[in-house]
Amino acid sequence: MYFPSWLSQLYRGLSRPIRRTTQPIWGSLYRSLLQSSQRRIPEFSSFVVRTNTCGELRSSHLGQEVTLCGWIQYRRQNTFLVLRDFDGLVQVIIPQDEKMPTGEIEIKVKTAELLNACKKLPFEIKNFVKKTEALRLQYRYLDLRSFQMQYNLRLRSQMVMKMREYLCNLHGFVDIETPTLFKRTPGGAKEFLVPSREPGKFYSLPQSPQQFKQLLMVGGLDRYFQVARCYRDEGSRPDRQPEFTQIDIEMSFVDQTGIQSLIEGLLQYSWPNDKDPVVVPFPTMTFAEVLATYGTDKPDTRFGMKIIDISDVFRNTEIGFLQDALSKPHGTVKAICIPEGAKYLKRKDIESIRNFAADHFNQEILPVFLNANRNWNSPVANFIMESQRLELIRLMETQEEDVVLLTAGEHNKACSLLGKLRLECADLLETRGVVLRDPTLFSFLWVVDFPLFLPKEENPRELESAHHPFTAPHPSDIHLLYTEPKKARSQHYDLVLNGNEIGGGSIRIHNAELQRYILATLLKEDVKMLSHLLQALDYGAPPHGGIALGLDRLICLVTGSPSIRDVIAFPKSFRGHDLMSNTPDSVPPEELKPYHIRVSKPTDSKAERAH
Amino acid sequence: MYFPSWLSQLYRGLSRPIRRTTQPIWGSLYRSLLQSSQRRIPEFSSFVVRTNTCGELRSSHLGQEVTLCGWIQYRRQNTFLVLRDFDGLVQVIIPQDEKMPTGEIEIKVKTAELLNACKKLPFEIKNFVKKTEALRLQYRYLDLRSFQMQYNLRLRSQMVMKMREYLCNLHGFVDIETPTLFKRTPGGAKEFLVPSREPGKFYSLPQSPQQFKQLLMVGGLDRYFQVARCYRDEGSRPDRQPEFTQIDIEMSFVDQTGIQSLIEGLLQYSWPNDKDPVVVPFPTMTFAEVLATYGTDKPDTRFGMKIIDISDVFRNTEIGFLQDALSKPHGTVKAICIPEGAKYLKRKDIESIRNFAADHFNQEILPVFLNANRNWNSPVANFIMESQRLELIRLMETQEEDVVLLTAGEHNKACSLLGKLRLECADLLETRGVVLRDPTLFSFLWVVDFPLFLPKEENPRELESAHHPFTAPHPSDIHLLYTEPKKARSQHYDLVLNGNEIGGGSIRIHNAELQRYILATLLKEDVKMLSHLLQALDYGAPPHGGIALGLDRLICLVTGSPSIRDVIAFPKSFRGHDLMSNTPDSVPPEELKPYHIRVSKPTDSKAERAH
Repeated sequence: MYFPSWLSQLYRGLSRPIRRTTQPIWGSLYRSLLQSSQRRIPEFSSFVVRTNTCGELRSSHLGQEVTLCGWIQYRRQNTFLVLRDFDGLVQVIIPQDEKMPTGEIEIKVKTAELLNACKKLPFEIKNFVKKTEALRLQYRYLDLRSFQMQYNLRLRSQMVMKMREYLCNLHGFVDIETPTLFKRTPGGAKEFLVPSREPGKFYSLPQSPQQFKQLLMVGGLDRYFQVARCYRDEGSRPDRQPEFTQIDIEMSFVDQTGIQSLIEGLLQYSWPNDKDPVVVPFPTMTFAEVLATYGTDKPDTRFGMKIIDISDVFRNTEIGFLQDALSKPHGTVKAICIPEGAKYLKRKDIESIRNFAADHFNQEILPVFLNANRNWNSPVANFIMESQRLELIRLMETQEEDVVLLTAGEHNKACSLLGKLRLECADLLETRGVVLRDPTLFSFLWVVDFPLFLPKEENPRELESAHHPFTAPHPSDIHLLYTEPKKARSQHYDLVLNGNEIGGGSIRIHNAELQRYILATLLKEDVKMLSHLLQALDYGAPPHGGIALGLDRLICLVTGSPSIRDVIAFPKSFRGHDLMSNTPDSVPPEELKPYHIRVSKPTDSKAERAH
Repeated sequence: MYFPSWLSQLYRGLSRPIRRTTQPIWGSLYRSLLQSSQRRIPEFSSFVVRTNTCGELRSSHLGQEVTLCGWIQYRRQNTFLVLRDFDGLVQVIIPQDEKMPTGEIEIKVKTAELLNACKKLPFEIKNFVKKTEALRLQYRYLDLRSFQMQYNLRLRSQMVMKMREYLCNLHGFVDIETPTLFKRTPGGAKEFLVPSREPGKFYSLPQSPQQFKQLLMVGGLDRYFQVARCYRDEGSRPDRQPEFTQIDIEMSFVDQTGIQSLIEGLLQYSWPNDKDPVVVPFPTMTFAEVLATYGTDKPDTRFGMKIIDISDVFRNTEIGFLQDALSKPHGTVKAICIPEGAKYLKRKDIESIRNFAADHFNQEILPVFLNANRNWNSPVANFIMESQRLELIRLMETQEEDVVLLTAGEHNKACSLLGKLRLECADLLETRGVVLRDPTLFSFLWVVDFPLFLPKEENPRELESAHHPFTAPHPSDIHLLYTEPKKARSQHYDLVLNGNEIGGGSIRIHNAELQRYILATLLKEDVKMLSHLLQALDYGAPPHGGIALGLDRLICLVTGSPSIRDVIAFPKSFRGHDLMSNTPDSVPPEELKPYHIRVSKPTDSKAERAH
């Protein structure tokens, strides 16, 4: 095949693994993904007129007659065409005379047919052409032609397929579809409504199949999964979609470790061949541990800079604000160490860090620079004794040129602040060229032992579920439900990948009495709306638990995409609009009538008030 | 294992193929389904505490220690338990002394734990217990425990899984999810609305991913499929669901025969092992042929009783109403032959057939009985000449004891009537013990060459699409679009199984100009609402076509279920209600506010008129 030099360069790129998201991904990558697996390569040309895809032809095809279908990528003097499909590019020569171009192979046209004309495109289908996201969304059907979008969507399809094989064929799960037109859940303020033809009666688009999957367990379908469409109306939020997809799983007779092993196996089995393999089992940390160590319940564990408790070093300090903090309940002194911070962080970085801490956390941050001669450079250097200094260096594993950021205050608050600064500083260091977070690394973590309840934001003396009211309490903490429910831990678990929560689940309550007690007595919910579920638990519900993985986010991380919109064929804008078709749209009043609703415009409600 | 005699009988039932839907299906059928295929049996006990399922144990397990989880089906004197899970039943003995029951194997309890108590069930989980459908739907989570529902849902899961393997792994299709919150389509009066947070702006739940799949073709994703959730608000209709599922497929560079071969291969590959294999290719008939032969576009081809045109026999008849009919345009004489009708049809059956024809079609039906001595018994027997008689017997292949039903009139009307009577008579004969339609037989048929347009019901001088406006015209009929569009045939095709339409699709229009002409000039549609699709066609849309299979109906037919509600985990009642949770339900006014809608109750509209 004849390749002009620029094309040959593109193709040589294929044999290199994709290391960074900014590196362009070219055609045929999908095929190479398939080739490296043990599976047979699908027949891409069955049932259609073409005999081969554009990216498929090699010198082994020499002399064969082929039929290709594709888009014209380039045309030169009506002699050369470069044809493109999802699989790659190929040069076609329309014979003028018997001249022979160099290269491995050429396609000599016998007959050619123009299948459709094409208006001038709003942007060219070439990787190096930059376009705004608004333009990409408006012409989504053109953006989908890019090799990057082809790769993302095809990888997504393949990964989900492997998950299905693992669940259905290897482990006997049953793929069951559950309704999306359902009843609203208590407190389901984020649920889209769907008016019915009965006056005043509405369906609701559920946020997850939670109730159904539990009912399936009661129904003896003891291994359920579904690639489930879910809905959440959160108004405008960046990188969220009003409809999204989760890998939804529920099992009977299972415990937390069972679900964890299942998911580890699932990810290992379905992981793309062109990425480093997944190592199992994943590490597990408790909620208390991740908060103390990373200041967040979804830590990015690809790098260190952990939070260290240095309270003991300062028990007898003369530094006022440390003394003050330590004298209060839950008072602590905490610090993180920024490796080579002295080299990479500027004075104004430190200033903005201190301002951020003051503005958002009402906390003081004390920077301590460790010079090359291991001397302290800090506003409080003179108040730190030599023994304290050595102990600090030991605890923090501080090296030359490092910077320690120190704060004092209530445990949770100090941790949250340092957790934020840890990420901020990592961003800063990376903009200065330090590689802290390897983009080829996938660092999974289980977070367990969450609290079962949290104080309500509106009224901290009341309780709300930390996750949802069906979560089972930790077996060791059941007695606390009747004495100090705030202290009870749950059997909820989160799966975290590179600082993103990609899944969450729990062992559920299968005892109707306990479920009623939690709903009615502890949470003061209206149990009437859940009477069908409570009744179901009464009829011999088996012990059960499950999990849901956020598919869009997972694929986004696997493909290294900047946004989940890059792994969804037709995403909405962050305001919930489809920019291609102008959705949502107005509806003529006569089409609202069958649903017994009227639009109440701002003027309407004014008129109402005037009555 | 020890089986009491009644249990042993149930199990022996397993080795027999299921011949009729009324025959009960017992546990372990799902396992036998798996065993007969080439696939490995999934691990049903991975990740959980049980070591085996109840239906799995055989004498080969003798002496092993096992852990089982299940529901207590029977209990006798606290000595015997019969435990049930999806896979079957097993007897457990709680040792009292060393007595040894007869049978192959027994499970001697070491420890037992009651996992949950169970209130008195509203109905027992036994096949022979009859319950109303309302009760089944109200306690769906209990109904799901029946071996029949377990079999249906597990077969559905497995069949869809095989379809995915065929499409993804064998033929390179990409599974792509498309949005369900979209813009309403022109004339989409059956689309549910979803109010957005923007005043007066609505999403719509689409009836199919039609637009998206075409846009994916424009986007170069040239082999798309999706197991797609679709929505249609048809109010109360028996055996329809407001949400349903279709196997949605679209391909580029394909023609009608390509799609047909794909689907034949798909069904053959995914067909359950416990049914007779699917024979391909499926026969094909044109729309004109099926109408003439079966009086319907979805004929049940498991049996004959075809419509025969006998106009030529009566060209010179003296029978007035035949003369009259033949003198009019498209006037015909048609008949069907009911085998052994003289034996099985009673005088009052014939009377009710004649009344039906008069009431619903304003047509006369003439019954002709062929006696054992091959004499005619008919009101008009004297007016039929011997030559006509012989010709009729030859054309209709009439045998002794048969009944011929004869009618005269306009071709389409006569065919439609006889098509209805053909099914009515088949029902009648089957209630009298004649087996006309073998329930183990799956008779597929392609119907092609549909008309592209139909006269509008409200205004027969205007046209509407016979299927949808994106259907391509038949290549031989493109010129007719500009002269006699009513006569143009389309490239639409339907797949029919045993008298049910289970799929339909078409080659689409990929030329923007032709699409605009059809939409604006012929159909007088508002093209503004489809401007994004028209624009997409302008940018080099490839030739493409596709199909959608109705999954619920297909599984219903495969499992021989009386209703699609039996192959859906949580179906709605025919009025669109979820009887388990009381859905749809009212919503407090404050939850309507964010969506800028108000309920307009009948009193409201009265008030409006009074203004």
